[in-house]
Amino acid sequence: MKFGVIGSGSWATALAKILTDNGNTIHWWIRNAETIEYMNERRHNPHYLSNAYFDHHRLHLQPSLEQLVADSDVLVVAVPSAYIEEVLSQLPAGALKGKQVVSAIKGILPSANQLLNDYLAQHFGLPLTDYFTVLGPCHAEEVAAEKLSYLTFSGIDETSALEIAGHFKTPYLNTLTNHDVIGVQYAAILKNIYALGAGIAHGLEYGDNFLSVYIANAADEMVSFLKRLVWDKESAEEQKTINYAASVYLGDLLVTCYSLYSRNRTFGNMIGKGYSVRSAQLEMNMVAEGYNASRCICKTNETVQAPMPIATAIYDILWQHLPARQGFRKIEGLLV
Amino acid sequence: MKFGVIGSGSWATALAKILTDNGNTIHWWIRNAETIEYMNERRHNPHYLSNAYFDHHRLHLQPSLEQLVADSDVLVVAVPSAYIEEVLSQLPAGALKGKQVVSAIKGILPSANQLLNDYLAQHFGLPLTDYFTVLGPCHAEEVAAEKLSYLTFSGIDETSALEIAGHFKTPYLNTLTNHDVIGVQYAAILKNIYALGAGIAHGLEYGDNFLSVYIANAADEMVSFLKRLVWDKESAEEQKTINYAASVYLGDLLVTCYSLYSRNRTFGNMIGKGYSVRSAQLEMNMVAEGYNASRCICKTNETVQAPMPIATAIYDILWQHLPARQGFRKIEGLLV
Repeated sequence: MKFGVIGSGSWATALAKILTDNGNTIHWWIRNAETIEYMNERRHNPHYLSNAYFDHHRLHLQPSLEQLVADSDVLVVAVPSAYIEEVLSQLPAGALKGKQVVSAIKGILPSANQLLNDYLAQHFGLPLTDYFTVLGPCHAEEVAAEKLSYLTFSGIDETSALEIAGHFKTPYLNTLTNHDVIGVQYAAILKNIYALGAGIAHGLEYGDNFLSVYIANAADEMVSFLKRLVWDKESAEEQKTINYAASVYLGDLLVTCYSLYSRNRTFGNMIGKGYSVRSAQLEMNMVAEGYNASRCICKTNETVQAPMPIATAIYDILWQHLPARQGFRKIEGLLV
Repeated sequence: MKFGVIGSGSWATALAKILTDNGNTIHWWIRNAETIEYMNERRHNPHYLSNAYFDHHRLHLQPSLEQLVADSDVLVVAVPSAYIEEVLSQLPAGALKGKQVVSAIKGILPSANQLLNDYLAQHFGLPLTDYFTVLGPCHAEEVAAEKLSYLTFSGIDETSALEIAGHFKTPYLNTLTNHDVIGVQYAAILKNIYALGAGIAHGLEYGDNFLSVYIANAADEMVSFLKRLVWDKESAEEQKTINYAASVYLGDLLVTCYSLYSRNRTFGNMIGKGYSVRSAQLEMNMVAEGYNASRCICKTNETVQAPMPIATAIYDILWQHLPARQGFRKIEGLLV
């Protein structure tokens, strides 16, 4: 399998490290020629996860996205969801024919409110059988430090998912598989909303007792959304294989909500302390994934109709000018 | 309702604060006459949670346990599980006739491997209808600081549980009820084992990614034990009311595993760093609840037969001289 990595942020860099540590030689799209020169010489990414060093014999750094795609069998997409449409619009419609795509995106494409698989099906005709995700609780920084982590590879073709996963197995990375390629993507999106909410709660000076109740209830809310949208429609046989407590669902929620380094949590903390959304964004100079996600999920839930008082209150705070204190007063009364 | 509080540690002090803040006048058993004198004068407990101040008109401090029991309708028992048998042996067998008992004990009685309700039934003839628990994610320190927290009152007579709960409702304390008075006690015991294990993992220098996977899997293990031991035996109607993600189950697990101040976690951390059990106990000058609990639960699981690889590995580390590193290597391979 010839892997092509698309993206050069910290998560893309972590995945490139995992793949090369497994012994794969990879193609890696880096837009900037100077960065390529630097990386070929200095063996690490100057901008992100710069403590991860590479064997440069295993790296083919490639400034042309179209060439990278042509050279690869399996494309690992690790670009923030807000930029993915801009990046992929460089490719001609037939570029992904015969390719497998592994999405490492933990968000929704905001302008179309689409999962990446829907976008790729619409614009490139990619069948869902050739689409996979790599998700789970995995701070890139701990990959760089080679702390044991777990990643789940999902695909409706679970045999192919298992084959791809084999190329990521390293002494510090355990790989798991499941078939719930739609559910895991929604779980990854939802957890950002709840982590943003955990940040708001922290900013409002709730304590650890409250936070644990909030997160436990958020886990339950996530499960009821996934049940209605995905799991209840599956066969009894498939339903049995779904474990809500698996790392790709509950584990990822926990690491994101409890991490002090999560952008979503940091952004939420500023909202809880009284910043407006606009000034929090200016201050942080970035958009937290959970911000767009809260709007997209509430939109989707108009048809799903799962009970989601927590996600709805966070949406109302971020998008409908509901004061954070009032939003959390509503949540308070509903927690069990 | 005349409440009698038994215990003078930090959790007993927090419960006394909650009850008096609700407007109740309480009887409170304090063994030491000097402490009583101090508390009547200075309005706070000199030894535990000393930043919680009381309206002393609402306190009847009582050095005689037998007198306290005679003066009270509802006894709130908040003594560490290791000392409870010694404390209650002061009472004559008929002392609890007509009383209601609310257990705030987060452990098992180690010498008999018994829940408190079984001990009280055996020694005092207390019927289960008069037995309740108050449990949930609630650091005493946050009660003192009046940070919003949630406590769950459980009893097979849920109407009485609700009535008792009403006396604990304060602006900083939300009360919940359920009927699962046996399940919640086991959940409280299990979470100490898993928190001790989280400490071991930390001592072994696993990172946040691993910890989240470990805790998610521990949650699943807890649920499968509770299902086999308690929930599967209940009526379909009762089963529907059980929510594994409620604060008294998942929430309490989270706050205990993630808290850096948990004794169980601190104890586990020393084991992970290579201390023997004996030297960790000497160093800390106390016994972590999870230590005895791991033995009791593994014993109970001989008949329950739930899949509990995590709790078993922790038992083997603490009681069977299995090196912590080896125990966690076993766990690593089983996490999903």
